[in-house]
Amino acid sequence: MTKQKAVVILSGGLDSTTCLGIAMDAGYDVYALTFDYGQRHRVEIESAKKVAAFYDVKQHQIAQLPFLRTIGGSALTDDRIDVPHTGVVDHEIPVTYVPARNLIFLSIATAYAEVVGAEAIYLGVNALDYSGYPDCREEFIDSFAHAATLATKVGTMGGTLHVMTPLLHLTKAEIITLGTTLAVPYELTSSCYEGEAVACGVCDSCRLRLKGFAEAMLQDPITYAHAR
Amino acid sequence: MTKQKAVVILSGGLDSTTCLGIAMDAGYDVYALTFDYGQRHRVEIESAKKVAAFYDVKQHQIAQLPFLRTIGGSALTDDRIDVPHTGVVDHEIPVTYVPARNLIFLSIATAYAEVVGAEAIYLGVNALDYSGYPDCREEFIDSFAHAATLATKVGTMGGTLHVMTPLLHLTKAEIITLGTTLAVPYELTSSCYEGEAVACGVCDSCRLRLKGFAEAMLQDPITYAHAR
Repeated sequence: MTKQKAVVILSGGLDSTTCLGIAMDAGYDVYALTFDYGQRHRVEIESAKKVAAFYDVKQHQIAQLPFLRTIGGSALTDDRIDVPHTGVVDHEIPVTYVPARNLIFLSIATAYAEVVGAEAIYLGVNALDYSGYPDCREEFIDSFAHAATLATKVGTMGGTLHVMTPLLHLTKAEIITLGTTLAVPYELTSSCYEGEAVACGVCDSCRLRLKGFAEAMLQDPITYAHAR
Repeated sequence: MTKQKAVVILSGGLDSTTCLGIAMDAGYDVYALTFDYGQRHRVEIESAKKVAAFYDVKQHQIAQLPFLRTIGGSALTDDRIDVPHTGVVDHEIPVTYVPARNLIFLSIATAYAEVVGAEAIYLGVNALDYSGYPDCREEFIDSFAHAATLATKVGTMGGTLHVMTPLLHLTKAEIITLGTTLAVPYELTSSCYEGEAVACGVCDSCRLRLKGFAEAMLQDPITYAHAR
């Protein structure tokens, strides 16, 4: 029996790797898609390659998106803006928000899904930790799925392109607990905004990850430069 | 008084150049955006540069999208698929359809609009000549505008990102007539799918253009290799 296909947007971080584990567990043939958009934490692309190899995915594509760095507008793509170490996640739009990033990622994943014949796209967005990011909200995801279905062949044939966001309403601890039951290889992932070979342990992304492991009462298998 | 800003997606072809003329006429400060997606008719990128210079736009960005060529799936990005010379435009999805192209173009234009503070995006889609392209349908455009508004800062502030498609329901002859009244420099544009320095005059895109000028009872100022 031919398995259904899914495109998984894989950054190499904890959330997207958990998503990949969920898609594998659901029985999909996975087509992993990683974006090189000039992010300062490019080390995550190497993590994505290791994760894709671990899961022996059908195909792993790395799409170059230099334009996001050209236009800037985010601490993650503009070297003139520092990444935050506030430890505070509030409801303002953070400086790490990359303009329309999920919109662009999902659009390119839609093209990839259409070419390989995938019925679903997995995206590891989370509405709790990133409540200030407009493109992490459920209403955006639902709206996008509708637009993407209309934009492609599947929509003209009465079908639907499914956008799966299994982590949307989970806390970081719940994500880690779920991933651990699925044997997700967290030792291969990287989450640090600073993008050094060893995670800093103090940027907001590291703090969020460490807090998640602590709350899940699990040990984070990666090494940190600044042990807490 | 500060003028409003608009992003104009500019391929260098007849339709997008007319759109730029319309946006200029509406009084916008224009930020032109051209995509280099490995299209075989790359000569249109040179046309886009000339058109942008003609209109003295505020900024002209050329975004590289090599991934569309990597995944293929269209006669415009895959050298193994011939461009059509049938002279027949039917309601099947044509081989020149590039998977989710307008979805991707609009998504990147949304990021650009957010960074420069533009309130509108102009796209020269046409639902008559390209009725077989799912992403040229009005319901897709409306649905996308909704998703893009939700994805960006403007949506969180109660605003709307406007997606302007002034050519959507016009015939090619009507587009040319309108553009001519706006003094659109059609001599700088290129439409041929083959992408040679001189337009072939026989591919479906050349045929559509020539038919439009004939019906508008106007002279096409560009040169064709095969005069009809």
